[in-house]
Amino acid sequence: MDNADVELAFGEQERLPAVAQDATSGAVLMLAFVTREAVERTRETGRAHYYSRSRDELWEKGASSGHTQTVEEIRVDCDGDSLLYLVEQEGGACHTGYRSCFYRTIDGEVVGEQVFDPDDVYDE
Amino acid sequence: MDNADVELAFGEQERLPAVAQDATSGAVLMLAFVTREAVERTRETGRAHYYSRSRDELWEKGASSGHTQTVEEIRVDCDGDSLLYLVEQEGGACHTGYRSCFYRTIDGEVVGEQVFDPDDVYDE
Repeated sequence: MDNADVELAFGEQERLPAVAQDATSGAVLMLAFVTREAVERTRETGRAHYYSRSRDELWEKGASSGHTQTVEEIRVDCDGDSLLYLVEQEGGACHTGYRSCFYRTIDGEVVGEQVFDPDDVYDE
Repeated sequence: MDNADVELAFGEQERLPAVAQDATSGAVLMLAFVTREAVERTRETGRAHYYSRSRDELWEKGASSGHTQTVEEIRVDCDGDSLLYLVEQEGGACHTGYRSCFYRTIDGEVVGEQVFDPDDVYDE
């Protein structure tokens, strides 16, 4: 029996949260939001695309920094309202230079690994 | 130098997405939303609390099913607008009986492991 695509439950805001997880290490790298278009572009290109709420635009991860994410698999949760991207992360996922955006505990302790100097990557 | 709590960027809706990750296996188990109160209750009790958007209420994971999450660590992302709970999951995280809510690929292939029969756990 062929599988059919899982129906995604985009709500009124037409976006869903997506988690990027390192397909090799299992580390959770980042969380961002996606639109239908972002999911389609991700499936078409095999590179992670998201939707920027602040800039109101489709965004390819790493397009300016080079820190792209090659998506090995997309998973959907039980309710169809969250996505999980299993990715091969080039460089670091975080604009601060850390491998993962979740580099701090809520108590403020830094537990992540810095893998690049953001001053070398971003002009701004 | 003592660490200070990371400031959380709760937006207008006063809730943030939180990812629960199995602290042992690294599997991403679920994604749900939290309020300030849910985060406080999680820190106080060491058990994962979330906020149910459909029921508009604070919710302790596993309170009815017994499938609780003991929270070993809470991490915060770079922007302070997403949380990561590292948990010890009792039973399965998903109400469908799967260990993780992300048990399907977007193509509809089941890749997760069913660990309990939901008919045995939920009355409804």
